[in-house]
Amino acid sequence: MSEFEIIRDIFAPLTATAPGAFNLVDDAALLEQQNLVVTKDLLVAGVHFLAKDPLDLVARKLIRANLSDLAAKGAKPLGYFLGCVWPKHTDRASIEQFARGLAEDQERYRIGLYGGDTTVHSTKTGPLTLSATFLGTPPKQGMIPRSGASLGDDLYVSGTIGDAGLGLAALRKEFKFTTVDKASLSSRYHLPEPRLTLGTALAGLATAAIDVSDGLIADAGHIARACGLRAEIDAVAIPRSAGAASWVAAQENRWRALATLASFGDDYEILFAAPPAMRRSITVASKASRTEVARIGTLSRGEGVLFLDEAGRPIPVEKPGFNHFT
Amino acid sequence: MSEFEIIRDIFAPLTATAPGAFNLVDDAALLEQQNLVVTKDLLVAGVHFLAKDPLDLVARKLIRANLSDLAAKGAKPLGYFLGCVWPKHTDRASIEQFARGLAEDQERYRIGLYGGDTTVHSTKTGPLTLSATFLGTPPKQGMIPRSGASLGDDLYVSGTIGDAGLGLAALRKEFKFTTVDKASLSSRYHLPEPRLTLGTALAGLATAAIDVSDGLIADAGHIARACGLRAEIDAVAIPRSAGAASWVAAQENRWRALATLASFGDDYEILFAAPPAMRRSITVASKASRTEVARIGTLSRGEGVLFLDEAGRPIPVEKPGFNHFT
Repeated sequence: MSEFEIIRDIFAPLTATAPGAFNLVDDAALLEQQNLVVTKDLLVAGVHFLAKDPLDLVARKLIRANLSDLAAKGAKPLGYFLGCVWPKHTDRASIEQFARGLAEDQERYRIGLYGGDTTVHSTKTGPLTLSATFLGTPPKQGMIPRSGASLGDDLYVSGTIGDAGLGLAALRKEFKFTTVDKASLSSRYHLPEPRLTLGTALAGLATAAIDVSDGLIADAGHIARACGLRAEIDAVAIPRSAGAASWVAAQENRWRALATLASFGDDYEILFAAPPAMRRSITVASKASRTEVARIGTLSRGEGVLFLDEAGRPIPVEKPGFNHFT
Repeated sequence: MSEFEIIRDIFAPLTATAPGAFNLVDDAALLEQQNLVVTKDLLVAGVHFLAKDPLDLVARKLIRANLSDLAAKGAKPLGYFLGCVWPKHTDRASIEQFARGLAEDQERYRIGLYGGDTTVHSTKTGPLTLSATFLGTPPKQGMIPRSGASLGDDLYVSGTIGDAGLGLAALRKEFKFTTVDKASLSSRYHLPEPRLTLGTALAGLATAAIDVSDGLIADAGHIARACGLRAEIDAVAIPRSAGAASWVAAQENRWRALATLASFGDDYEILFAAPPAMRRSITVASKASRTEVARIGTLSRGEGVLFLDEAGRPIPVEKPGFNHFT
């Protein structure tokens, strides 16, 4: 099995909808004149996914994690560049399984592969490492920034929070769940749903947005910092799935449990801010995009994040989000 | 040390010349309307560089390997997106050393950092893995393709061939060299020189081009395949540095030695084709760009690569280039 064969047989067919990719027979792709929103995310075995995860699901998670970044900017996805570092002695069937996952989600999200690079680790212990650079076109109202919110803007989040973290805990058997809950939570971990339709609908409405990948509280902190404000989040307002709700109910300390949900990563929901005058428009955008949106707090004077109980008292948060460097 | 601090203190200053990077406080960069040539290369410790290599040199090699791809397309570099997966327990000083290398070559090549992602391996054995997506603007005559050469076109290569491979062998003490030769050969391994000025000068002249990274013979094979022709290379015409020439002179079998030079990777020279009618123009482009160019062969009917001795007999080539998958 040669690199040439892998690229020609497995990856080149993924460029059918990307004319500037030259069927992967050139060193570079050509993108015609247009505004581009560009984002880059890494996925590493043992860090962002489990080494045993099925490779087609890993491929789809790679695509979806990146599309989630585009969704939070209100951008429409166009295509991507892919870098793969395979573990030593990876067989062709594994790469084909990975490419099947790419093909499935390329069709689902109507995107094309534009180019990339593929190589192999020199030792047996090097983990599968994936790098993707995604391109999208900004909405005509302009890309939703992370930094545009004003004092008094509401904070919203889409979907439900904490499911992927609970799903990972379920897969690792750290918590017990019913079979139904385990299946739905672990599928949130394996296959996030990028909120592209909502993102498009929020263009021109949201003043700031981020996708929730580090954890709700950590990502609220990113927005707060970028806007020079403080994020105040009502813990009880955090949207929970049925599985997450029953997990919270089974915990001794409800507030600590909610803080845990809001500290897990990998939600791939959109956290965004909008002025109170926009509340009706946000409801319309939510309905039009068939995506649940919950109002969870506000941006106030100050800095950092306050995670508040029903009486408005701050709940201590031990570890607001994942930090790769500590 | 947090990811936030690393990005704010070490990487954000590298975006000063990239307005669409938003100082790395957003999830995505915005690129204004223009044609773009895009290329992506991975560098992995133990595969593309030695784990002990100084990190500022590794950073500069990452930049130059990618710029070399742009050079072969005749493109003018604009900037890049960077993904880093650090070994566990990397200290801040190492990341700063790496960033110093980026800063130095960013200034040299007038490019900016547009965005990226940074993370850490979950085990001690995960090697430093770097991924870069580079953007450039195509020449007004259009990007030089890999596939545009015609029957009878001449084949040329810039600079000298095999130095980086000999430099690596010198660093690994596989061959003995004089101190002077070892220094110059190993610097070719650590710090390739992307042929950007030559690339620009070749736009409109070269009918096909590729940067020599897999090895001269292997990359000639890539051009031959893309053009549907056979590449014939005169072994004696391969340009050699003083260090490479004395190494060849010391080998028992001269032809085998030349085949070895032409099978090493990491040259980062431009291999290109042009019609015989362009010979004077190629000489002018070489002089104008102050880059040596050697005519080394021709494109004939057939497929694959013939590596020919003085009498026009094919020299057997055991391993024409590096293949990561075997």
